[in-house]
Amino acid sequence: MITCSICTIGDELLIGQVIDSNSATISKALNQMGIFVHKKCTAGDNRQDILKTIDLILSNSDILILTGGLGPTKDDITKNALAEYTGCLHFYRSATQEAHIKEMCRKRGNSMFEINQIQADVPENCSVLENHLGTAPGMWFDHQGKVIISLPGVPFEMEGLLPQVTERLKNRFSDSLIPIVHKTISTIGIPESLLAVQIAEWENALSRELHLAYLPNPLWGVRLRLSCYGDEDGTDKIDKAFSLLRPMLGNAIYGYGSETLTEVVAALLLQRNVTLSTAESCTGGKIGSLITSLAGASRYYKGGVIAYDNKVKEETLKVPSQIIERYGAVSEQCAQAMSTGVRLLLHTDYAIAVTGIAGPEGGSDEKPVGTVWIAVATPQKCNSQKFIFTGDRARIIDRSSAAALNLLRMAFLH
Amino acid sequence: MITCSICTIGDELLIGQVIDSNSATISKALNQMGIFVHKKCTAGDNRQDILKTIDLILSNSDILILTGGLGPTKDDITKNALAEYTGCLHFYRSATQEAHIKEMCRKRGNSMFEINQIQADVPENCSVLENHLGTAPGMWFDHQGKVIISLPGVPFEMEGLLPQVTERLKNRFSDSLIPIVHKTISTIGIPESLLAVQIAEWENALSRELHLAYLPNPLWGVRLRLSCYGDEDGTDKIDKAFSLLRPMLGNAIYGYGSETLTEVVAALLLQRNVTLSTAESCTGGKIGSLITSLAGASRYYKGGVIAYDNKVKEETLKVPSQIIERYGAVSEQCAQAMSTGVRLLLHTDYAIAVTGIAGPEGGSDEKPVGTVWIAVATPQKCNSQKFIFTGDRARIIDRSSAAALNLLRMAFLH
Repeated sequence: MITCSICTIGDELLIGQVIDSNSATISKALNQMGIFVHKKCTAGDNRQDILKTIDLILSNSDILILTGGLGPTKDDITKNALAEYTGCLHFYRSATQEAHIKEMCRKRGNSMFEINQIQADVPENCSVLENHLGTAPGMWFDHQGKVIISLPGVPFEMEGLLPQVTERLKNRFSDSLIPIVHKTISTIGIPESLLAVQIAEWENALSRELHLAYLPNPLWGVRLRLSCYGDEDGTDKIDKAFSLLRPMLGNAIYGYGSETLTEVVAALLLQRNVTLSTAESCTGGKIGSLITSLAGASRYYKGGVIAYDNKVKEETLKVPSQIIERYGAVSEQCAQAMSTGVRLLLHTDYAIAVTGIAGPEGGSDEKPVGTVWIAVATPQKCNSQKFIFTGDRARIIDRSSAAALNLLRMAFLH
Repeated sequence: MITCSICTIGDELLIGQVIDSNSATISKALNQMGIFVHKKCTAGDNRQDILKTIDLILSNSDILILTGGLGPTKDDITKNALAEYTGCLHFYRSATQEAHIKEMCRKRGNSMFEINQIQADVPENCSVLENHLGTAPGMWFDHQGKVIISLPGVPFEMEGLLPQVTERLKNRFSDSLIPIVHKTISTIGIPESLLAVQIAEWENALSRELHLAYLPNPLWGVRLRLSCYGDEDGTDKIDKAFSLLRPMLGNAIYGYGSETLTEVVAALLLQRNVTLSTAESCTGGKIGSLITSLAGASRYYKGGVIAYDNKVKEETLKVPSQIIERYGAVSEQCAQAMSTGVRLLLHTDYAIAVTGIAGPEGGSDEKPVGTVWIAVATPQKCNSQKFIFTGDRARIIDRSSAAALNLLRMAFLH
């Protein structure tokens, strides 16, 4: 089995100013091609620390991928550290990368500075991985039978270079790649421990080469992942196991693999060729934002009203003022009136409405922070449900948005 | 200097299914109290890997903090690995944690299962850090002069335990804590290399104990961070350096520290006691969602219209259909009409409107994907600006949202 370690570089990662998403992206790509990522480390912008970390983790791995520290400014030292580590004294200027840097500066309307040009200089013993989305080239070193790859830290640029990396790794290690299969089922509405009890018998009967993991997420429910390493029939074995699980969980399963609840709902809307609108109070546009994060959303999503202020609920959504006076803005009646109101206003088949108290202020004994009413208006009727979510403002907004999308999904199942 | 390493545990981190945000949260808290986090590592859900990783990184550190692997299900093995590593054979049941687990199950309306109860069992040689937000307790081990702390992986629960951790670390290491100061200035509108050239003289004149880092972010611009370790006058020195920088960058500076552009805009609206509404096409609710992510947003934000479909622009926002026919929906005229339309509809002082092509489809030679018009309507006038953003759909939506908030900020500066 070919093993890979990832080392992310940057003081910003050690002091907690930036959250690393690069290593997850790299791991996914490598797992897909049959390379096992068995270690991740972070080093600071510090020559000694970088050298020590490389040495430490390279000893156990066939491949080391580094990200970060390739920028044009003085705090970026990965390139020099790698030259030192591999014992290279001379640099050369990559003509293609230099031409590309010139072109990028021109396009952006910026002048090209010396510090940009220097980014095209790389150690003699590496080959360049061309960066078409930025100025810092990636580098590939063959070093004492192992491969060291250095990639920029800007996620967008790193991702652009990844296909070149996997392509070259495939050629280099073609004989030793093993099948690695991960498959995931996503559930919503059942807490982790209850789920574990419900499926205990199934879990105990899993064959030994399958590894089960529970991935609870306060927002999107619990995902169940089965993994299988080095088995030609891994995919079949996992599919078979999941097919036994499916009837046990029913509608609590909303998706497979990396499919999100938003994507599942979008597919349902498309399949049925119907349109959607949204009326959001406490979620403030989050649901619209989730729906329109998907390309092609205009085929089913017409738009929405962010009715944060009660006057907007009354004037734009035509919620009768008596409803707000009598029941309050956070009530079943108001949620229902919002959903039917936006459905009529924007002429859609379906409509979602959310009204609640995201906090930290605005709660009462009767309606504590976290109280949320969600309504889904369909061509036939209007379903509504009350939720009491715990957690801080961001969590309550996120969970309200997820619950609203799930309520819409349920409307299609009945 | 007291040093700490962080080890995050979970196959989901190694295969790239989950992005680790815990270590950033922990680092921030530790830096603030004067403890230097010098290493981060990730280990899989694998006994041997966990033991090896603990051994490796504990040798260089005074403190090791682990997160993850404490759940109720079989794939969670951190507790047993720690018992083994510290040579502890016996477990005891924490009465307070058991009572708390019972109470949580009751509140959630779930039955309490054996697997929940077992979560209250901890190795004899540790003391319990009570987890009030979940069922898995944290654990504190004093081991051969070092401290090992184990925390749950669910970010929400981990954060809840962090104050207990820092409190105990403060007592334990009170004599050895050093001042660590990080300060950040956030800029928008100047590319990283141009910024580096503009401030080169200032950077070269920085005193040696100050470390400068550039943190480019495609969405929110470039942040400049100065750090100072172990210097009693660190804060003063950094403040002095930044005060020299400020006049060189002018309005490109939008904030300090962890302050976001959204928070800066919110403060401006509050200061001036004015109200805001939004009209969003390609950003689909993202701007509303950013604004309402802040507590108390109802004091200045009335709401908005997500005008994804052109009919919504015409009917709800009263954009004249001739404008869309003659200039298209992605035009200065349409953006301006949307902003004045929503301003009138929702009776606000200010209004932001965004219309553009987020892609991947819908572009043309004349208006390529990434073309975005943004307008800000004020009580006096309407400012608008055209942008051409690069990147994928998510990036274009994010950058449009940031540019819109920045255009509103600029409206207050003139």
